[in-house]
Amino acid sequence: MNEFYQKDIISIKDYTKEQLETIFTSTDKILNLSPFDRREICKGKTLGYLFYEPSTRTRLSFDSAMASIGGNSLGISDITSSSTQKGESLADTVRIMSIYSDILVLRHPLDGSSRFAAEISDKPVINAGSGTEEHPTQAIQDLFTIKKEKKKIDGLKIGIVGDLKYGRTVYSLLHGLGNYDVDVRLISPESLRIRSDSTYEIKKRLDLTETTDIEEHLDDLDVLYVTRIQKERFPDEEEYLKVKGSYVVGLDMLKRMKDDAIILHPLPRIDEISADVDKTKNAKYFEQAEYGKYTRSALLGMIINENGF
Amino acid sequence: MNEFYQKDIISIKDYTKEQLETIFTSTDKILNLSPFDRREICKGKTLGYLFYEPSTRTRLSFDSAMASIGGNSLGISDITSSSTQKGESLADTVRIMSIYSDILVLRHPLDGSSRFAAEISDKPVINAGSGTEEHPTQAIQDLFTIKKEKKKIDGLKIGIVGDLKYGRTVYSLLHGLGNYDVDVRLISPESLRIRSDSTYEIKKRLDLTETTDIEEHLDDLDVLYVTRIQKERFPDEEEYLKVKGSYVVGLDMLKRMKDDAIILHPLPRIDEISADVDKTKNAKYFEQAEYGKYTRSALLGMIINENGF
Amino acid sequence: MNEFYQKDIISIKDYTKEQLETIFTSTDKILNLSPFDRREICKGKTLGYLFYEPSTRTRLSFDSAMASIGGNSLGISDITSSSTQKGESLADTVRIMSIYSDILVLRHPLDGSSRFAAEISDKPVINAGSGTEEHPTQAIQDLFTIKKEKKKIDGLKIGIVGDLKYGRTVYSLLHGLGNYDVDVRLISPESLRIRSDSTYEIKKRLDLTETTDIEEHLDDLDVLYVTRIQKERFPDEEEYLKVKGSYVVGLDMLKRMKDDAIILHPLPRIDEISADVDKTKNAKYFEQAEYGKYTRSALLGMIINENGF
Repeated sequence: MNEFYQKDIISIKDYTKEQLETIFTSTDKILNLSPFDRREICKGKTLGYLFYEPSTRTRLSFDSAMASIGGNSLGISDITSSSTQKGESLADTVRIMSIYSDILVLRHPLDGSSRFAAEISDKPVINAGSGTEEHPTQAIQDLFTIKKEKKKIDGLKIGIVGDLKYGRTVYSLLHGLGNYDVDVRLISPESLRIRSDSTYEIKKRLDLTETTDIEEHLDDLDVLYVTRIQKERFPDEEEYLKVKGSYVVGLDMLKRMKDDAIILHPLPRIDEISADVDKTKNAKYFEQAEYGKYTRSALLGMIINENGF
Repeated sequence: MNEFYQKDIISIKDYTKEQLETIFTSTDKILNLSPFDRREICKGKTLGYLFYEPSTRTRLSFDSAMASIGGNSLGISDITSSSTQKGESLADTVRIMSIYSDILVLRHPLDGSSRFAAEISDKPVINAGSGTEEHPTQAIQDLFTIKKEKKKIDGLKIGIVGDLKYGRTVYSLLHGLGNYDVDVRLISPESLRIRSDSTYEIKKRLDLTETTDIEEHLDDLDVLYVTRIQKERFPDEEEYLKVKGSYVVGLDMLKRMKDDAIILHPLPRIDEISADVDKTKNAKYFEQAEYGKYTRSALLGMIINENGF
Repeated sequence: MNEFYQKDIISIKDYTKEQLETIFTSTDKILNLSPFDRREICKGKTLGYLFYEPSTRTRLSFDSAMASIGGNSLGISDITSSSTQKGESLADTVRIMSIYSDILVLRHPLDGSSRFAAEISDKPVINAGSGTEEHPTQAIQDLFTIKKEKKKIDGLKIGIVGDLKYGRTVYSLLHGLGNYDVDVRLISPESLRIRSDSTYEIKKRLDLTETTDIEEHLDDLDVLYVTRIQKERFPDEEEYLKVKGSYVVGLDMLKRMKDDAIILHPLPRIDEISADVDKTKNAKYFEQAEYGKYTRSALLGMIINENGF
C-alpha cells in the first residue's frame, strides 16, 4: 500500500520534501507507461468535481488526467445552475458528491473549504484551489516542471514576477519551494507585493528578496515564473499601464538572461509573455501544462489505487 | 429476457407492487456485485439526458448510476445554450437524442412530456421529473430506502411534512405507497396542503390523514419524510417564517419520536432538518441518496441489458 | 496506414471525389461492425472540443460518435465560463487542449480559425464549423446520406431551398457536390440568395440554377435539401412572413415531387418542413442525423487509429 492511498490533498504545506519526491517519481513512472497500461490504473473509477469558482483549465486538467488513467469524471463545473443555488450547504453537496464518485476535486473561494470538505467526505478530497493561498496540485506541477527541466531544484535562483498579492498559485509555490534550498526573488509592483502576513512562515524557510525591479535580477535567474497582472487590481489605469509594460517578458529580456534559464507561467496568459518567446528553448509553460496533467494522473492513481502503479 | 427490457419508465402509477419488488431485488443484486462485475452490465452503452429544467442532483445521480454499470452519459443539462433555443420542438430533440444514445432521460416542466417523448423515441425513455406530479425514479428510490431501512413497507406509519402542494416528489411517493398497506399523515401549512384533485385516486388506495400539526403525530411515526418549504410560495413573509419554524426537524423533535423512526428527505435540504440530526441513527437521507444511485443503476441495467444481471 | 491518419479536416474543398468515397466506404464498415468491435477503434482515446459558438447538436454528434468507437470527450462547450473570458488567445487555448486530448474539434465564428488551429496544434484538428462557409463534416454527412438513400450522387437533380446567404452548411455542401456530376437548383428569396463571391469557384464545377420559385422545380428534383430561414435576417417582418410560407415543405408540395425524391435538412428545423412529412418515406432528415454520427465515427477512427478499421 502506498502512503497516499485514500489520503486527501489539502495544502502543499502538508508535504515533506521526501513526499514530493515520491510524487515526482510516480509521475515519471506514469510518463513511461504505455497508454494501455496507464488506463488500467483507475479503470472504471469516477472523479467528482465541485467547482464553486469557474476554472476550465484546472477542471480539464483533472478530467484529462483521470481519462488517461482509465477513469471518468462528472460533477458541477459551474454552480449557477445547481442545487447550491437553492441554498444547499457545502457540507451537503460534498456528502452527495462523495456518493457519486470515488474521489472529490473541490475548487472554492474560501480558505479552509477543502479541509472542511475532507472532514465530511468519506471519499478523499483534492483541493483544486481554495481561498487566497492554496492550490497544492498547481504547486506540485510547478515543482515537477522545475525538477524535470533543470534536473534539480536545490541551488536554483528563482524569480517570481507579477501579481504576488492576489494569486494563490504563488503562495502555494513558495510553500512548496520551502522544502528546497533555493534563492527566491519576488518581483512585483509596490501595490501587488506579497502579503507579509502570509509569508511570515515562508521566510523562515526560504531566502526571499523582494523588489520592484526585474532588470537587476535577470542575468542571475535559473527560473522565471511569470504571473498575470489583472487590470482590475489597479484603482488607477495609468498606474496599471506603467506597471504592465515593465514586466512583459519578450525576446529582449530573454537575451539578458542565462542561456538555459526557463520561463514558466501557470496560464492562462494574456500578454505577460510575448508570443515570440513561445518558440525559444527557454519557454516551458506549455510543458508545464502537460506535466500538470501527468502529476495529477500520478496523484489520482496513488490515492485511488491501493497498489499504486 | 427481463420484463423491463427496452421499456419506458413514465409514471410510478404504471407499476404493481410485484414489479416494484422486482426492482428492489435487482437493486440488492447490484449492491452485492463487485465494482468490476457491475461495470459489465451496460459496458459501452450511452445514456442521453435532456433537462428542460435544471436538476444537477438528479442528473448526477443518473450519470453516476450509468458510470457504475460501465456506461457513459451525454446530453443537454441546460437548454439555454442548445438548439431548442432556436425553437426546435421537443419531438425533434427527442428524435435526435435517441440517435445519440441507448436510453433517454428526460426532465421537463410539462405533464405528459415523458409519455409524449416515449411515443416518439425509438429508444426507451426514463422520466426524470415531469410536470407537477411525476418523478417515478425518485419514488422508487424512496420506497427502496424505506424497505431497506425498515425491512418492510406494509404496516408502517409514514408522515410527509412540508410543501405538499408543489413538490412532484410527494405525489409520486404517494402513488408508490398506494401499492402498500400504510398509514400516511400529510402534514403541511394550510396553504401548502396537497391538491385535492390530485389525490382523488390515491385516497381510494391509501389511508390518508391531513393535518397542519406535526406534534400530534410524532410519537406514532415509523418514517418522517421531510420536504422543503420554499419562501417564494408564500405571498406574506411573516406567514412563511411562522410556518417554517414549526416544521424544522431537530433533536428535540427527534426525542419525541420512536427510537427507530427514520427521517428521509429528497434533498437538497435547506434548513428543514437541523444539521445536528445528521449524525443520529435516525437520519437516513444520505443513505436515501446513495440508494437512489443504485436503484437507478438497477433500472438502467434492466432496461438496457436484455439478460438483466 | 490509412491516408487520413493524423490528418486535419479543415475544409470540404480539400477532398477529392476518391477521398470522399473512401470516407463513405469506412462509414459503411462502421455501420456493419458490432457495437463491441466498434468500441475497439478508439478505445481510451480522448476528443477535446472547443466551441466558440454554441452548437449542442454538432457537439453531441461528435460526442456520441466518439463514444460509439470507445473514446471519450471533454472540453469547453461554451466559452462564457472559460479562461478565454480572461482574454486567452485562441492559439494558447488550442495548445492546451491539444495536451488534454488526442484530437481537437473546433467550432469558431471566424473564417480560417481551423486552419490556424491546425498549424498550432500537434494533434489533428477537425473543423466543426467556422466562419461563413466551412462545415466539412456536415457536408460529408449530407453527401453520405444522398449516396446511401439514392444509391448514387452523380446524375441527381438537387434542390437547396431556404436561406442560402448565411448558412455555412450550404456552401460546404455545394463544394462537396462539386466533385460530382449533379444539377443543382438554388431556391431562395431574393434577399437570401447565395453570395456570388462565394460561388465563383463552385460555378466552374457545378451546374447551378438560381431561382426564387420552388414550384417550377418540384417535379424534377431527386433531392430537396431544406434549410432554416431565420426571422432575424429580415429587416421587415411582413417580408419574412411572405417568404417563409412559400417554402414550407408539406404533404401538398410532396405530392408534386417524384415518388422517390428525398427531403433532407441539417436540423434543427423550426417549421420549414411540416411534421406530417416526417412519416413519409421521403423524409430522410433523421436518417441524415444518424448518418452524421457514423460518418463522424469513421472520420475520428481513421484519423486516430493508424490501422483504420
